[in-house]
Amino acid sequence: MKQRVSVLDTDLTLRIEEREVPQPGPDEVLVQIKSVGVCGSDIHYFEHGRIADFVVEQPLVLGHESSGVVTAIGDNVTDLEVGTTVAMEPGVPCGRCQQCRAGRYNLCPDVEFFATPPIDGAFCEYVVLPRDFVHPVPSHVSYDAAALVEPLSVGVWACQKANVSLGTRVLITGGGPIGAICALVARARGADVVGVSDINSERRERVAQLGFPAIDPVSGDIPEADVLLECSGAAAAIDQGIRALAPAGIAVLIGMAPTDTVQVPVGVIQGKEIWLTGTFRYANTYPSAIDLVSSGKVDLDALVSAHYSLDQVEKALTHGAEHPADMKVIVRVL
Amino acid sequence: MKQRVSVLDTDLTLRIEEREVPQPGPDEVLVQIKSVGVCGSDIHYFEHGRIADFVVEQPLVLGHESSGVVTAIGDNVTDLEVGTTVAMEPGVPCGRCQQCRAGRYNLCPDVEFFATPPIDGAFCEYVVLPRDFVHPVPSHVSYDAAALVEPLSVGVWACQKANVSLGTRVLITGGGPIGAICALVARARGADVVGVSDINSERRERVAQLGFPAIDPVSGDIPEADVLLECSGAAAAIDQGIRALAPAGIAVLIGMAPTDTVQVPVGVIQGKEIWLTGTFRYANTYPSAIDLVSSGKVDLDALVSAHYSLDQVEKALTHGAEHPADMKVIVRVL
Amino acid sequence: MKQRVSVLDTDLTLRIEEREVPQPGPDEVLVQIKSVGVCGSDIHYFEHGRIADFVVEQPLVLGHESSGVVTAIGDNVTDLEVGTTVAMEPGVPCGRCQQCRAGRYNLCPDVEFFATPPIDGAFCEYVVLPRDFVHPVPSHVSYDAAALVEPLSVGVWACQKANVSLGTRVLITGGGPIGAICALVARARGADVVGVSDINSERRERVAQLGFPAIDPVSGDIPEADVLLECSGAAAAIDQGIRALAPAGIAVLIGMAPTDTVQVPVGVIQGKEIWLTGTFRYANTYPSAIDLVSSGKVDLDALVSAHYSLDQVEKALTHGAEHPADMKVIVRVL
Amino acid sequence: MKQRVSVLDTDLTLRIEEREVPQPGPDEVLVQIKSVGVCGSDIHYFEHGRIADFVVEQPLVLGHESSGVVTAIGDNVTDLEVGTTVAMEPGVPCGRCQQCRAGRYNLCPDVEFFATPPIDGAFCEYVVLPRDFVHPVPSHVSYDAAALVEPLSVGVWACQKANVSLGTRVLITGGGPIGAICALVARARGADVVGVSDINSERRERVAQLGFPAIDPVSGDIPEADVLLECSGAAAAIDQGIRALAPAGIAVLIGMAPTDTVQVPVGVIQGKEIWLTGTFRYANTYPSAIDLVSSGKVDLDALVSAHYSLDQVEKALTHGAEHPADMKVIVRVL
Repeated sequence: MKQRVSVLDTDLTLRIEEREVPQPGPDEVLVQIKSVGVCGSDIHYFEHGRIADFVVEQPLVLGHESSGVVTAIGDNVTDLEVGTTVAMEPGVPCGRCQQCRAGRYNLCPDVEFFATPPIDGAFCEYVVLPRDFVHPVPSHVSYDAAALVEPLSVGVWACQKANVSLGTRVLITGGGPIGAICALVARARGADVVGVSDINSERRERVAQLGFPAIDPVSGDIPEADVLLECSGAAAAIDQGIRALAPAGIAVLIGMAPTDTVQVPVGVIQGKEIWLTGTFRYANTYPSAIDLVSSGKVDLDALVSAHYSLDQVEKALTHGAEHPADMKVIVRVL
Repeated sequence: MKQRVSVLDTDLTLRIEEREVPQPGPDEVLVQIKSVGVCGSDIHYFEHGRIADFVVEQPLVLGHESSGVVTAIGDNVTDLEVGTTVAMEPGVPCGRCQQCRAGRYNLCPDVEFFATPPIDGAFCEYVVLPRDFVHPVPSHVSYDAAALVEPLSVGVWACQKANVSLGTRVLITGGGPIGAICALVARARGADVVGVSDINSERRERVAQLGFPAIDPVSGDIPEADVLLECSGAAAAIDQGIRALAPAGIAVLIGMAPTDTVQVPVGVIQGKEIWLTGTFRYANTYPSAIDLVSSGKVDLDALVSAHYSLDQVEKALTHGAEHPADMKVIVRVL
Repeated sequence: MKQRVSVLDTDLTLRIEEREVPQPGPDEVLVQIKSVGVCGSDIHYFEHGRIADFVVEQPLVLGHESSGVVTAIGDNVTDLEVGTTVAMEPGVPCGRCQQCRAGRYNLCPDVEFFATPPIDGAFCEYVVLPRDFVHPVPSHVSYDAAALVEPLSVGVWACQKANVSLGTRVLITGGGPIGAICALVARARGADVVGVSDINSERRERVAQLGFPAIDPVSGDIPEADVLLECSGAAAAIDQGIRALAPAGIAVLIGMAPTDTVQVPVGVIQGKEIWLTGTFRYANTYPSAIDLVSSGKVDLDALVSAHYSLDQVEKALTHGAEHPADMKVIVRVL
Repeated sequence: MKQRVSVLDTDLTLRIEEREVPQPGPDEVLVQIKSVGVCGSDIHYFEHGRIADFVVEQPLVLGHESSGVVTAIGDNVTDLEVGTTVAMEPGVPCGRCQQCRAGRYNLCPDVEFFATPPIDGAFCEYVVLPRDFVHPVPSHVSYDAAALVEPLSVGVWACQKANVSLGTRVLITGGGPIGAICALVARARGADVVGVSDINSERRERVAQLGFPAIDPVSGDIPEADVLLECSGAAAAIDQGIRALAPAGIAVLIGMAPTDTVQVPVGVIQGKEIWLTGTFRYANTYPSAIDLVSSGKVDLDALVSAHYSLDQVEKALTHGAEHPADMKVIVRVL
């Protein structure tokens, strides 16, 4: 049986290719793809052909924020039925190394992650995954929302690292999709989001529509916070955000900086005994992220601004350039 | 200047007495009392004259869930104005001992706690407290709700101990006021309250009205949970609740058992590596508890079932016996 | 190729049987057994034929504290050489379930653990294990010490749970091998072992020889402690130990109680906000346990009291009955 | 009664002055000073007249690493006898603010710290301190060692922040007194100190004498570590040290950088989810630091290289310039 796949060639052009539908192994599941969200990393591979040491040296399928319907299960799979709506966790670790055994499977050196060379992603009609990384989602959750459980997981992980809780004053720098998601997760944990800063005024308006205080980092005052969730990758935001923290505050770097090193106010970190860390994807977040969506605590559908078909992946990848305040673009596969 | 005070005598009768209004010291605040909630411990002192080693050996003023208005401030107090609505934290620790220095001031051996012999409480017109234990509350919060920040703190503390968070499955045993408050706090932290059990059907109805699954612990199934918040003090509930926990679950004993020791399923605690602890009041909870109330995440006014005046403290203390499903009774002082 | 295996039959008699030497799979290692420690659980299976729900319903090989030499490796194993001395971690989890992914692989419901029906143990000449559970040990460590890395792990895990650190006052109840090991680990972490209690005077002498204050729990005073490591399983010790804890103390139940439930002083747990938990084996402890042994911080050879051969497993299992103060008995296989 | 005091004038000259011996208040203790260690901050005030925003704008007594003998106690002090050897914790917090109540009294904005303008230090004959900050030391501990409990506390705090434990691989950058102390504390906690780096070869020799692997950061290989204790304040060491960390590693900045901001490898912090923090003095460390010294786990006397009298404070402050590998210089007062 054949499927249609959107392939990024090494010359950074996209084309549709016919490929064989894979067969699930004994512990695996075959999923028919429904919705796939566009992430900044997909756009970056399309534009630059690489992220850090990951280079598009052979044709690559992009897309790692995906949902679908189970269409076949392996012989050992007893707890998942054909027809179930599922959200796919796109990184499959080895399960055996020191990091995996310590519960930090996102740091597994042998993880295979969708749309990260040379591992193919989800801009296609069918994928196979181990059952343990295919998460059932209640049927009242839309396919789009199920796909966006992936970026939601990024926010869940960041808030968990920062121990965001009741009354925690949370400052978010960067009002793009991840910044907005972090704000939504923080609010769902009972925190007090004291501000979401962005240099783009359209994004600030969008953030304000979601019910958060939008801040212009150039002209506005930065309020004191207990937690900084840094989603811009901008050096100025990192500096400004850390300085806004109260004693014993926690700063989490989520956005990727364009440079390997950044000037960090170490004197402030020492004087206030601040903790600074960064996130690399997430681990063990899907169950609570799905709970967030299915309980209605977070409305992911409200973040979706545009839809494209599998034939229109290029349009989907370039949509954001002209619509900087649009949060999420979805490729609807079937 | 004189005030009227409700005094419990050593023969366990209540009377109104005239006393001098105290003067605030340099770091203290004088508060005119508005609302005082009735707690089970007040009722217990009234009925039995003691709780554990604390005995009513001299006349005692009951009441420790209180709010009011600042009417005078000491010379060193610069950050609190006369006229401000405040919630009073009723336990003042020494601030110097090992427990205080470690941030566990609720375990201070020299703490002076309202309505705990021989320290007087708040069934009166005026009290003096150190400024640091008088917490401003936004003016849109009712006096009743401000008073109930105290029991709310019990729930905040318990949920914090248990690290209740997004998607945490929380089981609550005991559907009285503290059980209900724990459920409300857990929900505000993004948890999934899987059940509140109570043997009293009226209480179960009340719990269901608040939006939580009510469970009959005798006939009903107890769902699996990650956290147990035990608010009944009943040996059967402790046993049943611990057995319902998933691996690595956390059980917090909040309700007081009538006996010093209880049969605990230690085999389950070992086999699932469960953590069991208990709470003794709370520490550093007022700011986030006030945030919960003022942001509307928790509606404390909805828990109030009846009001009495300072002359009717006895009625207030006996109200619950006939109305087991009534959550909170308030004494309105002025 | 054949090997000799000591088998416990369902009638609880022991015999030597010839079995095929297993072949390692691609990710596995074949180990020639050298030393195997005798554990209380081995003795219990021999005497009673069961522990809790684990029943000897078919012939079983006992022994799970084992060391040996690598004699063959699977095709995928690139980081372990034939001839290396190794300590075997006897429980192999699934690596895929929720517990495994959270880093709690000791709580994996599908773990296969040596000498736990129906999984065979190490009283034999050769075993096969996944490479990740075969831990290299420096060659200056004796085979006996390498075998005893397993019970050492129990102590490492318990001390880790209790956060035993510099100056922590640690009370140990039960002066058998696990109690002694816990004391040695606590000391290596910089703790202050304030007492090891045992009702047996010979054991108290043995504990004192190791440099720890021995306490008679019947007549002696129990010193205040920050941490209780309960290694006796006795109800009286659990009660006495918890009552000896300072505020915010931690109690870890390591010894197995003969009954499913035990009277626990819940009032003390609440009033002092004590944390109580139990241990089930260990996870991720082998590297630091091996570091403890190879650096000389803990001398495991000093705990060995007697040696037997593979033909003498019955003698090894009954040795302790007559020598209650003997810490560890070793079966030397080859 | 008069005492002699070594005073640093605003022109940065030192002189001996006669001052009145202070009288202890009801909760205070009068201590006759015995030994005072010289710290880098003392030298910095002497040379530059300021550290950050703290400026010598009036005559200042230096010295904050001090020990002595109790010579008088206030009326409320019941648990400390005249004649007791004591180590003085040199920072007295307010005990009431948010930081104090949270157990982070080192971050109290109103802390009064010895030898930090305008608070006088211990290069004198007598000081008065609240009883709670005067820690009894067993009489077999020397006065010098008791004074050095202060810098030892810096190491205890840093190791506690980093959760240094059994088998933790600890890298220390900067082989001065604080680096050496951190190494000693890490070893006492059962850690594996994999290297102490310093650009000064004499310091490397000194470090090697203490039993630690000394590393030349320019030419040597930096081993992988789980924890970095950065004691040099050098930007290159911060960068190099963070890059040496394993996934989920912890970096603690203890040394003060000469600049407010430093280039930090944020990409590494994100990719490995490293935690970075800094220390500001310490809190609640004296009991375990004293236990370290009195139990013999750390030999502080071995760090003392030279002694001077109260008349020779200038020599004591300039000693280090010519003896970079000398760890600690002591001023012996009486």
